[in-house]
Amino acid sequence: MDMNGSYATSDEMHVVTDDLPWAPFPGVEDSGFKLLRVNRDISGLTMLLKIPEGVRGPMHKHCGAGEYMILQGHIDFGDRKLGPGDYFFEPAGLRHSEPAPDEEVIMLVVSYGPIATTRPDGSPGPVVDAELMAKLWERALTESGAVAPAR
Amino acid sequence: MDMNGSYATSDEMHVVTDDLPWAPFPGVEDSGFKLLRVNRDISGLTMLLKIPEGVRGPMHKHCGAGEYMILQGHIDFGDRKLGPGDYFFEPAGLRHSEPAPDEEVIMLVVSYGPIATTRPDGSPGPVVDAELMAKLWERALTESGAVAPAR
Amino acid sequence: MDMNGSYATSDEMHVVTDDLPWAPFPGVEDSGFKLLRVNRDISGLTMLLKIPEGVRGPMHKHCGAGEYMILQGHIDFGDRKLGPGDYFFEPAGLRHSEPAPDEEVIMLVVSYGPIATTRPDGSPGPVVDAELMAKLWERALTESGAVAPAR
Amino acid sequence: MDMNGSYATSDEMHVVTDDLPWAPFPGVEDSGFKLLRVNRDISGLTMLLKIPEGVRGPMHKHCGAGEYMILQGHIDFGDRKLGPGDYFFEPAGLRHSEPAPDEEVIMLVVSYGPIATTRPDGSPGPVVDAELMAKLWERALTESGAVAPAR
Repeated sequence: MDMNGSYATSDEMHVVTDDLPWAPFPGVEDSGFKLLRVNRDISGLTMLLKIPEGVRGPMHKHCGAGEYMILQGHIDFGDRKLGPGDYFFEPAGLRHSEPAPDEEVIMLVVSYGPIATTRPDGSPGPVVDAELMAKLWERALTESGAVAPAR
Repeated sequence: MDMNGSYATSDEMHVVTDDLPWAPFPGVEDSGFKLLRVNRDISGLTMLLKIPEGVRGPMHKHCGAGEYMILQGHIDFGDRKLGPGDYFFEPAGLRHSEPAPDEEVIMLVVSYGPIATTRPDGSPGPVVDAELMAKLWERALTESGAVAPAR
Repeated sequence: MDMNGSYATSDEMHVVTDDLPWAPFPGVEDSGFKLLRVNRDISGLTMLLKIPEGVRGPMHKHCGAGEYMILQGHIDFGDRKLGPGDYFFEPAGLRHSEPAPDEEVIMLVVSYGPIATTRPDGSPGPVVDAELMAKLWERALTESGAVAPAR
Repeated sequence: MDMNGSYATSDEMHVVTDDLPWAPFPGVEDSGFKLLRVNRDISGLTMLLKIPEGVRGPMHKHCGAGEYMILQGHIDFGDRKLGPGDYFFEPAGLRHSEPAPDEEVIMLVVSYGPIATTRPDGSPGPVVDAELMAKLWERALTESGAVAPAR
């Protein structure tokens, strides 16, 4: 994967997601992601995201908005319980830590900007941007021996 | 739904898609869409799209790119057969008519621009943009008596 | 210029705009544009646009939003007169015909979607999208003998 | 200015930039910006940026791409010298510190994502995103007594 090259843009591609490995999502234990596309201009990305039962993510802030469609499992949002085929939109700028789900959840994420993390002492942590995610993904592809998706 | 107001932007929202009706997609017989979000600045939208078995869509051109995740059914792309959980990316500018699927297909569509249609005589047809889709959606919501999605 | 290749994306580039010719903007007499960038995914573009004194543009609708900064000349917007260094934002969906300026106006345009035109009889006209603009630009570059901008 | 409200989106607006004060750009001595628009979904913004003669900016990384048009002064890019009316595009992901210009430079900036800063010891610094810039801008407007731009 070449962040300066064709992958980061928009060539036609068809991805059978079962062909891809789960790469560890930075900072979330036992989680996984499958990177489907990088939108280089805005540091955005499209991925499958797997959150294990009982795992709570770290405090973070999405600099951009995000669209989510649940593919497996359920998530509670106050009085609504969303499951497979349901959708939520998260506007830019929310700072939060997701509650731990009661079961493994897999969702499609279309993200429109990087994630700014915060260290436990309140100081700025690393920025999880598309460049970092693409590096982690490339490493996971190499380690798994998986073939990169058609582009 | 107010194209000049808050819906068109990015307030937090959670959508249980079973709560929503299927609105007829313009120009595709027996099809349906559930509008999830309008990205007003680029005339983009996020929707569920249902294509019935055996129905071939009309010739059209996507002015923007599109991301697709199949939720139900299968679609053939040359030597790849994509099914639930699989993903494809269509770059901007393709002019085509989708082949008819062998079974009902439901997919999530994230579209980054309007669709330019062509009349059978080759002359320009109407442009299917986010504004038109929002009007069709509002009508379908009203007719169905469904409650508009939380925003 | 290759709409399927690297130009359409985001490589580093520096453009001395005086090096570039004015290409005729489709449908606006004696006008000119200098294409600076194509944002392929959304059929967006960045260009310099020159409108001659006394020329009124045709009826059209911007499917996407647009940002404008005036570089030369003045435009009246009701009770505001904007000149060099001033800015205006046009949300998506407006259908209008610009009033003729009292003097030649040059502005920077950052456009987030194609333009849908309407024929005098009210029927849909051609869609002016990034693909068409890139073709017109390539032709103008070839005819002028200008060197394509560094990318 | 309300990041959750209408400013952050795309209502029609006309801005006479001379009406606006210069707000200090964070981390760049004697610099100034005039915020013209926030693109909330991607933490993007449009602004005028003023860099004084001889001032070198800090090391930083643009998470998103940026478009720049010079309105006053000149900047050297290797063998090209860009001046008023010239344009450059900076792809996402570059980590750099701009060279100090020989004269005051004012340019229009359309930015498609936040800036990640690095502390002198190499650790992550604050993220300069649209939310922070909007706060700094609101403060500058209040202190100057300027009227907020028409929206």
